[in-house]
Amino acid sequence: MEEGQQKVIQYIRRNQGRGQRFLQRLVQEGSIRGHESRAQAVIIEKCRELGLKMDIWEIGGETLTSHPAFCSDRVNFKGNPNAVGVLQGTGGGKSLILNGHIDVVPVGSLKVWEHDPFSGHVHDGKLYGRGSTDMKGGTVSLVMALEAIVESGISLKGDVIFQSVIEEESGGAGTLAAVLRGYRADGAIIPEPTNMKFFPKQQGSMWFRIKVKGKQAHGGTRYEGVSAIEKAEKVLMELRELEKRRNRKIEDPLFAGIPIPIPINVGKINGGEWPSSVADSAIIEGRMGVAPDETMEHAKKEMELAIKAMAGQDQWLERHPPEVEWFGASWLPGSLEIDHELVAALSECYSMIKGKSPIVEASPWATDGGILNKVANVPVVVFGPGVTKKAHDANEYIELADVFETAEIIALTIMKWCEANEGGAKWEQ
Amino acid sequence: MEEGQQKVIQYIRRNQGRGQRFLQRLVQEGSIRGHESRAQAVIIEKCRELGLKMDIWEIGGETLTSHPAFCSDRVNFKGNPNAVGVLQGTGGGKSLILNGHIDVVPVGSLKVWEHDPFSGHVHDGKLYGRGSTDMKGGTVSLVMALEAIVESGISLKGDVIFQSVIEEESGGAGTLAAVLRGYRADGAIIPEPTNMKFFPKQQGSMWFRIKVKGKQAHGGTRYEGVSAIEKAEKVLMELRELEKRRNRKIEDPLFAGIPIPIPINVGKINGGEWPSSVADSAIIEGRMGVAPDETMEHAKKEMELAIKAMAGQDQWLERHPPEVEWFGASWLPGSLEIDHELVAALSECYSMIKGKSPIVEASPWATDGGILNKVANVPVVVFGPGVTKKAHDANEYIELADVFETAEIIALTIMKWCEANEGGAKWEQ
Repeated sequence: MEEGQQKVIQYIRRNQGRGQRFLQRLVQEGSIRGHESRAQAVIIEKCRELGLKMDIWEIGGETLTSHPAFCSDRVNFKGNPNAVGVLQGTGGGKSLILNGHIDVVPVGSLKVWEHDPFSGHVHDGKLYGRGSTDMKGGTVSLVMALEAIVESGISLKGDVIFQSVIEEESGGAGTLAAVLRGYRADGAIIPEPTNMKFFPKQQGSMWFRIKVKGKQAHGGTRYEGVSAIEKAEKVLMELRELEKRRNRKIEDPLFAGIPIPIPINVGKINGGEWPSSVADSAIIEGRMGVAPDETMEHAKKEMELAIKAMAGQDQWLERHPPEVEWFGASWLPGSLEIDHELVAALSECYSMIKGKSPIVEASPWATDGGILNKVANVPVVVFGPGVTKKAHDANEYIELADVFETAEIIALTIMKWCEANEGGAKWEQ
Repeated sequence: MEEGQQKVIQYIRRNQGRGQRFLQRLVQEGSIRGHESRAQAVIIEKCRELGLKMDIWEIGGETLTSHPAFCSDRVNFKGNPNAVGVLQGTGGGKSLILNGHIDVVPVGSLKVWEHDPFSGHVHDGKLYGRGSTDMKGGTVSLVMALEAIVESGISLKGDVIFQSVIEEESGGAGTLAAVLRGYRADGAIIPEPTNMKFFPKQQGSMWFRIKVKGKQAHGGTRYEGVSAIEKAEKVLMELRELEKRRNRKIEDPLFAGIPIPIPINVGKINGGEWPSSVADSAIIEGRMGVAPDETMEHAKKEMELAIKAMAGQDQWLERHPPEVEWFGASWLPGSLEIDHELVAALSECYSMIKGKSPIVEASPWATDGGILNKVANVPVVVFGPGVTKKAHDANEYIELADVFETAEIIALTIMKWCEANEGGAKWEQ
């Protein structure tokens, strides 16, 4: 390791207590949707301490809400800003976006939480609370990395753009707003809980609703009606066939170990209204996985055509074709070649800290990386501390050791990617 | 035709206007559930006029509510009595129950009614209003028949027991209460809207609920969960197989023209809660048809065993067997041999009026006849004016001509079955 690298790593190791307390403060400012401002204030205060050039703004406006990738049912973003802090480079280096979302999902039933969901309680190397894993732990890794670089007096050639965004859990409007504000970079790291695996590709997804019509009749003479529930079963079967066909086409080795790389999940069905009537309507709702290199439009078209073709084989459905709607949430997929130089840089730094190569996989879920990748054309790797299973769960926690190790790996990656200046010249000089 | 018969028929033909006005009054006293008293008062007044021996009582009490055939979620029967009027015979004849329910189903959306649902509006030989077909028209046929006999000065050997009951549309507690009060007879006619066909057998039915368990997971990794919706599809398939097996066993020629004599109708399905989660629960609700000669218990057992056997073929369902529940409504089937003397008597009288033989079928729905038949062991024929399709529909109406013809047929049947005394001696002499 070079001297600059050693200084940075040492800083992080000496300041684990600070990192833990910072994560505690962040978790304690529970930032469920619509209440992100106090947690953002904690972030902003820290960024100012580090001398980052701040850009704090309330998202919204026509350009955002009319963008095809905009997806939110939130009426008002007032008072809960996005925050971006830029560590300006001296020039000539590659730039890097470090993106973390500040919003957390609801706590669910309080009964199953052992401690207050926003306690930040620490026990046995684990820090507990809603958002600890998803993804304030990852954000603290970013902040610790930046702090270590700044406090070690190291300057960089390229810019580091640290983004603390709202709305990731509800469709990514925060990151989309940052993109539309003009933020671009030569690469991006998003420390979502990957259990420190690399996810250069992420499955995208969107919600669908399929409405199936039947014809009412009395149950005692059900042969006089047409059961929308029976017809919905045909739709369900077709969706499974479609899923098979779509997944057969996935040849990316990153998906090798995954049983269904891009699933079609039927999450909900509601049909009929009365036990002794033939159901005249059934509604299926689900989530369609989108391949990393696929467009949303392509996936939509494929389902619509499959349902249409299936309906053509059924006398009733031919005359009353099921309606496919796309509603609610959608998340763009992300895709980066695994031999991209960003993966290589991150990988080299990972090996320096962990003494082994990283596991590289495709993620079964999307992140704001899809927006950075597909809308802003930024190469993205999702890599962070924490286990997916703990996210959104009661008694969510994160292993602090992973937060610190991630901070070390990201600090080294920043120095490599953005190129630390020789002699450790301070960036503000 | 004998003289007495001629007198009675002539009376009915001369008094069609009276009959129409009586049906209008009955329809105008809209007797939806819980509001039967005013329509019952109209009936009671008429019975008193005819000199019937009245028994008017509020149903309820432990004996009723703890009876296995009791099926009602009504808390209070106060103020809305059952009414029974007996035309006592001189002795030595067979007795006959004439049963009609006074309750009507809700009117549904007012928008689709052309007139007030309780108008009793008459146009083009049709009388309109909720309850006109189901089954105040039939009740008026009974009353006109009785009035014609009484006013013609004809006495009978056997008793005629005229029952105007509540609660038929909600499970038959009114007729059950009459049975438990001791009313029995050698035969019964229920003039539900059969379009003047004879239904000596009626399909019974009951509601079932099947709960299917799954295992939640994120839709992006749906292979980590078990979809309760997919498992529910297996239940649906098994229900169709069971329906086939059960109907293959029906050999009664009365069912010859009916595509599915005892259908299993799945009327409702609700599964899952969130499009992008694997559903961990699904609930199926439906109506199981019961064969005329089958017990409810036998039908229940058959479904329970079928679901259990199916579950045994599936690793997940074997460990998490679907739960079958019986809830809400149930209607006992009814069964009378088609060569029973009551069918013969009614048939002979039908031919006298219509000049042809009646159509004899099995009904696809149950009536209070099931209770009279299975609980009190009374032979029952369901036969009345009006078309099933109009019952429960908006703009319900009945053809008045059918009401009057039915009155004639029933009057003759009463005289035959209960045996009119020679010389037309008045019964009260």
